[in-house]
Amino acid sequence: MTLTRGGRLEAMDAVMAALNQSVDVDRELWREDIAGSIAHARGLVAAGVLTGAEAAELEAGLRRVAGEIERGELAWDPALEDVHMNVEARLVELVGDAGRKLHTARSRNDQVATDLRLWCRARGRETLAAVRELAVVILDVAEREIDVLMPAYTHLQRGQPSRLSHHLLAWQEGLGRDHGRLCDALARLDECPLGSGAAAGTGFALDREATARALGFGRATRNSLDATASRDFLMELASALAILGVHLSRIGEELVLWSSSEWGFVALSDAFTTSSSMMPQKKNPDVAELVRGKAAVLVGCATTLLVLEKGLAFGYGRDLQEDKRPIFDAFHHALLSVRALSGAIATARFERARLEGALRGGHLVATDVADWLAARGMPFRSAHHVVGALVRRAEEQGVDVSELSAAARAEVHPELGAPEIAAVLDARAAVERRAVVGGPARARVVEALAEARERWGAPSP
Amino acid sequence: MTLTRGGRLEAMDAVMAALNQSVDVDRELWREDIAGSIAHARGLVAAGVLTGAEAAELEAGLRRVAGEIERGELAWDPALEDVHMNVEARLVELVGDAGRKLHTARSRNDQVATDLRLWCRARGRETLAAVRELAVVILDVAEREIDVLMPAYTHLQRGQPSRLSHHLLAWQEGLGRDHGRLCDALARLDECPLGSGAAAGTGFALDREATARALGFGRATRNSLDATASRDFLMELASALAILGVHLSRIGEELVLWSSSEWGFVALSDAFTTSSSMMPQKKNPDVAELVRGKAAVLVGCATTLLVLEKGLAFGYGRDLQEDKRPIFDAFHHALLSVRALSGAIATARFERARLEGALRGGHLVATDVADWLAARGMPFRSAHHVVGALVRRAEEQGVDVSELSAAARAEVHPELGAPEIAAVLDARAAVERRAVVGGPARARVVEALAEARERWGAPSP
Amino acid sequence: MTLTRGGRLEAMDAVMAALNQSVDVDRELWREDIAGSIAHARGLVAAGVLTGAEAAELEAGLRRVAGEIERGELAWDPALEDVHMNVEARLVELVGDAGRKLHTARSRNDQVATDLRLWCRARGRETLAAVRELAVVILDVAEREIDVLMPAYTHLQRGQPSRLSHHLLAWQEGLGRDHGRLCDALARLDECPLGSGAAAGTGFALDREATARALGFGRATRNSLDATASRDFLMELASALAILGVHLSRIGEELVLWSSSEWGFVALSDAFTTSSSMMPQKKNPDVAELVRGKAAVLVGCATTLLVLEKGLAFGYGRDLQEDKRPIFDAFHHALLSVRALSGAIATARFERARLEGALRGGHLVATDVADWLAARGMPFRSAHHVVGALVRRAEEQGVDVSELSAAARAEVHPELGAPEIAAVLDARAAVERRAVVGGPARARVVEALAEARERWGAPSP
Amino acid sequence: MTLTRGGRLEAMDAVMAALNQSVDVDRELWREDIAGSIAHARGLVAAGVLTGAEAAELEAGLRRVAGEIERGELAWDPALEDVHMNVEARLVELVGDAGRKLHTARSRNDQVATDLRLWCRARGRETLAAVRELAVVILDVAEREIDVLMPAYTHLQRGQPSRLSHHLLAWQEGLGRDHGRLCDALARLDECPLGSGAAAGTGFALDREATARALGFGRATRNSLDATASRDFLMELASALAILGVHLSRIGEELVLWSSSEWGFVALSDAFTTSSSMMPQKKNPDVAELVRGKAAVLVGCATTLLVLEKGLAFGYGRDLQEDKRPIFDAFHHALLSVRALSGAIATARFERARLEGALRGGHLVATDVADWLAARGMPFRSAHHVVGALVRRAEEQGVDVSELSAAARAEVHPELGAPEIAAVLDARAAVERRAVVGGPARARVVEALAEARERWGAPSP
Repeated sequence: MTLTRGGRLEAMDAVMAALNQSVDVDRELWREDIAGSIAHARGLVAAGVLTGAEAAELEAGLRRVAGEIERGELAWDPALEDVHMNVEARLVELVGDAGRKLHTARSRNDQVATDLRLWCRARGRETLAAVRELAVVILDVAEREIDVLMPAYTHLQRGQPSRLSHHLLAWQEGLGRDHGRLCDALARLDECPLGSGAAAGTGFALDREATARALGFGRATRNSLDATASRDFLMELASALAILGVHLSRIGEELVLWSSSEWGFVALSDAFTTSSSMMPQKKNPDVAELVRGKAAVLVGCATTLLVLEKGLAFGYGRDLQEDKRPIFDAFHHALLSVRALSGAIATARFERARLEGALRGGHLVATDVADWLAARGMPFRSAHHVVGALVRRAEEQGVDVSELSAAARAEVHPELGAPEIAAVLDARAAVERRAVVGGPARARVVEALAEARERWGAPSP
Repeated sequence: MTLTRGGRLEAMDAVMAALNQSVDVDRELWREDIAGSIAHARGLVAAGVLTGAEAAELEAGLRRVAGEIERGELAWDPALEDVHMNVEARLVELVGDAGRKLHTARSRNDQVATDLRLWCRARGRETLAAVRELAVVILDVAEREIDVLMPAYTHLQRGQPSRLSHHLLAWQEGLGRDHGRLCDALARLDECPLGSGAAAGTGFALDREATARALGFGRATRNSLDATASRDFLMELASALAILGVHLSRIGEELVLWSSSEWGFVALSDAFTTSSSMMPQKKNPDVAELVRGKAAVLVGCATTLLVLEKGLAFGYGRDLQEDKRPIFDAFHHALLSVRALSGAIATARFERARLEGALRGGHLVATDVADWLAARGMPFRSAHHVVGALVRRAEEQGVDVSELSAAARAEVHPELGAPEIAAVLDARAAVERRAVVGGPARARVVEALAEARERWGAPSP
Repeated sequence: MTLTRGGRLEAMDAVMAALNQSVDVDRELWREDIAGSIAHARGLVAAGVLTGAEAAELEAGLRRVAGEIERGELAWDPALEDVHMNVEARLVELVGDAGRKLHTARSRNDQVATDLRLWCRARGRETLAAVRELAVVILDVAEREIDVLMPAYTHLQRGQPSRLSHHLLAWQEGLGRDHGRLCDALARLDECPLGSGAAAGTGFALDREATARALGFGRATRNSLDATASRDFLMELASALAILGVHLSRIGEELVLWSSSEWGFVALSDAFTTSSSMMPQKKNPDVAELVRGKAAVLVGCATTLLVLEKGLAFGYGRDLQEDKRPIFDAFHHALLSVRALSGAIATARFERARLEGALRGGHLVATDVADWLAARGMPFRSAHHVVGALVRRAEEQGVDVSELSAAARAEVHPELGAPEIAAVLDARAAVERRAVVGGPARARVVEALAEARERWGAPSP
Repeated sequence: MTLTRGGRLEAMDAVMAALNQSVDVDRELWREDIAGSIAHARGLVAAGVLTGAEAAELEAGLRRVAGEIERGELAWDPALEDVHMNVEARLVELVGDAGRKLHTARSRNDQVATDLRLWCRARGRETLAAVRELAVVILDVAEREIDVLMPAYTHLQRGQPSRLSHHLLAWQEGLGRDHGRLCDALARLDECPLGSGAAAGTGFALDREATARALGFGRATRNSLDATASRDFLMELASALAILGVHLSRIGEELVLWSSSEWGFVALSDAFTTSSSMMPQKKNPDVAELVRGKAAVLVGCATTLLVLEKGLAFGYGRDLQEDKRPIFDAFHHALLSVRALSGAIATARFERARLEGALRGGHLVATDVADWLAARGMPFRSAHHVVGALVRRAEEQGVDVSELSAAARAEVHPELGAPEIAAVLDARAAVERRAVVGGPARARVVEALAEARERWGAPSP
């Protein structure tokens, strides 16, 4: 602690020390902290602050610290507050005065802003890859199940005849936008804060653009106060992850429903289910429930980050210590959820007979009958009304609307007695009729699959 | 109500009717609803469902309804549930059977998804323009006040000498990223859902790409189930607006602080302040407080939308009725906040004497002294410690560190007695030394201003 | 506007006026504002500020304003900012100087705090009554369906045999705690702020306790700064309503699932369902979906209020203008949801055959078999393992575990061949065995019903 | 893992195992898990399932496991999923078959619900004590500083003369209600779920009330499905803690402002401040910023828990695994914040000269002048207007309204030239005038202090 308090302040209270330390959380940043320090040391050589020999000594020392951390040998000391001071203190032990020079022209404020961006970039890329993998799993299943029909539901009521692959492609569409949001967020944070100092830059002649390039950033941040005090890159990433989480929760909800006895559309593999401590027969879709639950955590992380910065004056305020756990957690839970769903979906068995069986019952071709009437000139609203009466008739008889006799139909409305209507009442034909762009007709879905594979860069195997 | 219930269901309960109606909120969409219906009617001609004459009749009828709404003549009827049915019912009154044909090949599910995207696009563009205007106001003030110094604060403590314009540019940087986020969101939602039907498309041969183009969209949505059941475009927009709101709240907080007696850095114009009902002397920075408060509303809107879709099975569920108020509110409050801040900042007087006066006290050049020692070879950590002691000495004497005599300085450390140190202790010189990219030195800020003007397409007046 | 700006400030900017006005929202408080003013006027008499005649004039004037508002005759003027100034301005028009005296010893800060508490008290009591009514509806249904069995689910998988009434009583338990939370919140806010002034009380000798009593409050608030600047009563109410909303959303989810074709446990009445604009056969459980969706709104309201006050310095800040919409919305949506569910549940038909039919399949008595083994001395973990194998055997044969022959059972484990096991395999007997306190055995549920009726003060009809 | 999967399911996927394990988080519950198991074991004796000897063996084994955990000797195994299975597995290793009998008549669902309630009760009581301690610290400071005046602020503008102790008591009032909310929540959760089984109770004849009493609960839960599937006690506690956090954040904001150079009202002790890694002179109010920041975390925790349960069907769903981290975090951060503020406030120095100095400037007695006019018969609104003009006059002269000459005052309004007005213009007299209940007059504050000490059970030392 003497590293920062030394010349100025008396000793810290124990509760304050517990509040003040963050190394239990922020040590997650050690790789980035060391990478940033190496880049900064090189920058200090160019700025004439360090000799090349000092920088080499520092770099060797930092790599040694990295090795110690990797091997679990470094004893993290909460009294040193954070990852930065823990690494620097160990470095000073190893290399002495050169270590004491490293923090020239730097503050923890620009240091942690840099570490966080580097960390988010790495985890962001990992997440992009995982999202892509999940999308490809879905495409593979959609391709495999291309001929399986099922109802399209609205309000969780069976609505119209549709196709399992079409449903699965809807899952994939959302993931495509999630991927886009993460890409945009990563592009926006691609700036290096190093050299911004505590809030107002530094008097040393750092070549900030060179350091930015050395760390793989697109450029240096443009304003030192903004660079050290703003965290919208975290709010944006957490929001994108929360939206992703909501999408995953919807898939999770459907897997829960579909693996119930009542639906029976899918059987998750044993590898992704659990049993009960009390009920020996249970096979529970925990994977889907956990993913659904983690959406709540992701919403909470985004909320926390938004609330945290609300109403903060510039520049850096210590409130920002609390920005790390929510973003670490958000990436952790999002990645785990995406990967678990990939495995669960890849290994699930879709119960074709149950899916297609659900086309019976629910009067799924009612819209088709109304459309048929409309195509023959009856205004759709009137046709809608007529078919409503037809459904009521079917319900009175306890049959599906497709099972009514021509006579019964004709009683509701004379046109409905026509023999051509038979084709209208066939579910498979009804799906094929839905051949608009984005519709469930087989050819359209095949096209959509091809287009999606192209987009994800994942040719059909 | 008979429009949708007619053939099938008995009458609705009164409480249910109150719950079920949404026209008090969603009539905000009437312009978009009518534009979408006109495009759909034209599409029905191309699909062979309507004759050109019928479409013309519909279009005329719809324009007449638009006129009635614009003039406040339409009696919105909650029994007709929503904006869509209110418009259609009036249209049927006006044009009869052609009106009853309009809903062919369409569901309210694709209709409302289209309306919402159109509405968000329009409000999004308005917001982009307003954000740009606020940024330009800030640039104008920053340019005007280019020579005014002030402290850079961290932890709300005075830290180092800096420049007012540099501080203002930090506000503007965040707005730049807010602008980017909104642009990205608008690009991502630039797809037309019409033709997606209730969930599974339609059997009529709609040219969905043509309709998309007619409504100014980049293309048709790619999956009918996703198009009708997904609202991540709302979650994304609301998140972007919440982040914008957080940024505005930070400006608000600073205006509140700066217009206090204690700070006295800014005097808001009467046009943006209020007084008190009890205390006749009060001149309150309500504009800044309201903007800060509205950030809470914006966070709430984003949260609501995330929570709303969490765990929803596909396709459309009626939960989505609740998606309108939060997005309407979010845009309303965000726009009002941005515009009010533009006016408040444009008309505020920055109190130069108070700003520069704050450079005295706070030992602002302490870092510069440590840097000077570091530049002469003392490791920065040691220099930091030495200057800590120097500050302690100054505090014992009750003076700023820049006011200590050479002798007193030398007592702390011999090097500090050097006469060259005088330049180090001058605040203006200290600002000029901070000449890294993104720093507060005059030339750098002038550069940053020019670059920002270029970015916003707003040349210096 | 001159009422508060007059002597001090120039005219307000138009955007600022739009931001600054709140009368479009806070006029909801008019009844409470007028009641509070009448009580205050009486207090001013006691304090010697007003004569009895002036107070009578004021009271008559205020009642006249109330009448005008009730009849929709008052033209609300946004230039007068809020409900308080609109009422006062009209009062001054009506009664002249006496009206100008009303605001003596009062600020809008204590005025609005009082109005809000009065309003919350009224709506809170309404909500308590509605929650009680919903609970009683549930009790009535539970009593009616006392003999209907159904599976207890965990993870949405059938788990053990149970009873519909037992399930319904679980809904009611949560409502009981919701009722308690609202009561506690109302008790905590039962203090009158009037007399707290802007922040520091008033120099007039008001008898604050008398005014508190006159308005039906338990007592006066104890600290004028706290009374005018704190809104935890809103945060607490909104949190309680959000939790209530979450509970309602769970009932909503179950009604959605249970009214699906797949479950078929419940048929909502036509009076609480809707159809589709496209699909004539649809009968959708919109009531349940809307209630589920409104939980998101309620969570958003609670979040907004928490975020709003976070980090606000004392005393009153204008941020608090934004506290009204969230609490108004929260009560509005909560009340509507509670009432709609009451109607929906009261009029729903529970499909007994489907409920009991679901006891077949799902190996629901597996726990009972394991318990039976455990009761005979086999450690439960071992019994759990044995029955796991038994279930696997049943699945291989494609039967329920209760349908295996004694021989097949004995092959898995010799004890399982015993004839006494027949009773164990009967679902109804299994439910009766679960006779612990809080269990689904008939007698226990009858007891629980009676106890709940007692608690709600709602004897069996 | 074989403990629960054994007879039924194949091996688990590695990603699923990572998702599925919760022992890294829920081992926090080990004390409660063991206490619950001991009580359950005793209950099994009473129910005739275990012999007394077996129960004794179990209890000894469980205490041994507790010792191992306490000493850090137990190797937590993620493959055993959670704290429950880790403890049970170790117990079975230690005591064999008796261990395998412990889970008779129990499910992890009632087990974890019990553990969580016990844990919340313990942490809740700790928090109550800490909140009380903070309140008492505030009372002590308020008593010490009883004679120090300061302005009452609204909108962060100086408003009227007031008293430091009065301001501090406002902090304490909010804490009093926070204490009440936590008490209410703890009373509401004071029910024992044990015996509720997985969802539908158990067939063993457990005396649930006896077990409830043994664990110190007020009674057994009343419905087994509700007991295992509801978590409103967590939502309620997290909401109460979030509101507490918001209150603490307001104190934090004020400490940040007050310890700025600009305000200078308070000097935090070194023991609760930090310096900067770059700026050697800094003494930062980190304690106050961290407390302010942690409010965001607390809001996030409450949000997460609300979102988590929204829309969940009964009974237990695995989503609930995610309920632990938010409640653990919420208590952790709340407790740390409360304790740190206690220390920071107890050791802070309030700068009396700065506080009283702030009474000059700001025209603080403007309300008093208007009140004086009103007391002499001028309608307050008119008086307000007159004093507004008086303030304008003072500002033109560059003086405080109290510094205007009688002549200058009389020019604004003749009555203002009266000599009696001198007393009105004295700040200390003005405070004493504010002698209503809850006002800042010395006697009232002394009363309020005494009343608060009584309430907190903390007599003046």
